[in-house]
Amino acid sequence: MFLGKVIGEVWASRKAKDLDGKRLLVVERVDGKSGGEVTPVVAADPLGADVGELVVVAFGKAARVAFGGDGDFAFEAAIVGIVDQGNVPSHDWFEGYKGGA
Amino acid sequence: MFLGKVIGEVWASRKAKDLDGKRLLVVERVDGKSGGEVTPVVAADPLGADVGELVVVAFGKAARVAFGGDGDFAFEAAIVGIVDQGNVPSHDWFEGYKGGA
Amino acid sequence: MFLGKVIGEVWASRKAKDLDGKRLLVVERVDGKSGGEVTPVVAADPLGADVGELVVVAFGKAARVAFGGDGDFAFEAAIVGIVDQGNVPSHDWFEGYKGGA
Amino acid sequence: MFLGKVIGEVWASRKAKDLDGKRLLVVERVDGKSGGEVTPVVAADPLGADVGELVVVAFGKAARVAFGGDGDFAFEAAIVGIVDQGNVPSHDWFEGYKGGA
Amino acid sequence: MFLGKVIGEVWASRKAKDLDGKRLLVVERVDGKSGGEVTPVVAADPLGADVGELVVVAFGKAARVAFGGDGDFAFEAAIVGIVDQGNVPSHDWFEGYKGGA
Repeated sequence: MFLGKVIGEVWASRKAKDLDGKRLLVVERVDGKSGGEVTPVVAADPLGADVGELVVVAFGKAARVAFGGDGDFAFEAAIVGIVDQGNVPSHDWFEGYKGGA
Repeated sequence: MFLGKVIGEVWASRKAKDLDGKRLLVVERVDGKSGGEVTPVVAADPLGADVGELVVVAFGKAARVAFGGDGDFAFEAAIVGIVDQGNVPSHDWFEGYKGGA
Repeated sequence: MFLGKVIGEVWASRKAKDLDGKRLLVVERVDGKSGGEVTPVVAADPLGADVGELVVVAFGKAARVAFGGDGDFAFEAAIVGIVDQGNVPSHDWFEGYKGGA
Repeated sequence: MFLGKVIGEVWASRKAKDLDGKRLLVVERVDGKSGGEVTPVVAADPLGADVGELVVVAFGKAARVAFGGDGDFAFEAAIVGIVDQGNVPSHDWFEGYKGGA
Repeated sequence: MFLGKVIGEVWASRKAKDLDGKRLLVVERVDGKSGGEVTPVVAADPLGADVGELVVVAFGKAARVAFGGDGDFAFEAAIVGIVDQGNVPSHDWFEGYKGGA
């Protein structure tokens, strides 16, 4: 899993059937570098995260388990948590994060 | 999953049997860096994407589920959506994307 | 698996059900570069690691096996070992690590 | 999957039983950067690729499926296609590739 | 799979039960860059590799298959081959490797 910030959303009318009705968020990894240089990930969202929120993204089977069912879906990244609070001492990139900001 | 742009296609006459009749697209990740420096991915395409289109690529079992069947195929990357529209505010690399461009 | 240092913890009230009651640690990979530039990972923790400890993080099914049960959980990274001791000759980044430091 | 160029082969007398009799090729990802800086991958080869050929490499279960059988082998990267031809317009790194060169 | 050089070993007294009695080697990927800058991997070792040896590391289920049994272990990286010999023409980083050096 990684920590990411929701930066947007995409829509696709031609898509795998399993993606019907699922939000596809664009999420940027949070790290120690200056922003905007990290390849974003597209994650299915069962939790209703908003742009700007800090989230935990899981990959693979975990992402499918997060949606319930038998785990056989045509996606492999999902938002499994929306971070309210964190404690990451001495890492500037986390300082000041207060949830939803 | 990641956001990519279809940049081409490859053909192989010697290949794993499961790849027979499947298009193999070359897809470059979309990110904040200047183009052309990112290692491309080869993805099987069940949706009929064209060069220049923005797509969502899924990996692993998800890629195989996108083709239906029992999920046991000799590939692990597939196009699961062709992006028509997106909303990724304040990220230049996305601005101006209108689908198929 | 990779070697990481626990740098913090995050909390999420909206989350996948499987994450209830599990600690979510933020872990930075240990490597030869100057710190703070590596994208951190979020790992579920069944062992009770503290901030500053050196840990071994496993991904995928292995992470779920570390928690016992049937392996179908909505996470794919977990702490599977807390390093007490190591012998990594001629690599400065490891020198001086004595456990828990 | 990714596009790679076969750059060599390795042999191991002490190895997991499943690797007996399988060729282990060293493959470098093809990308837009100057060569020689990308970490190579070791892939099992059921197709008989030669040094210098452009190949499609698959990971995980897909790699094991490419060898047939029940998919439980001690490797997770295999050559699933040998590229004869490609069309990747406006990408210098692909121009001039004619198969086997 | 990737080519790596064994650079050390770590020990953990608090660990997932499946890791009991397994050696945990620290392995650095072999590539075209100057050494010491690549994030090392921790791999379980069923073959008895020594520091300085060149090895093939496999991930995921493959790593667990290498240890036999039912494949449900709390690790996902293992040494599946110890390289005796290789032929990787025109790549300086491989030249001169004679096994165990």
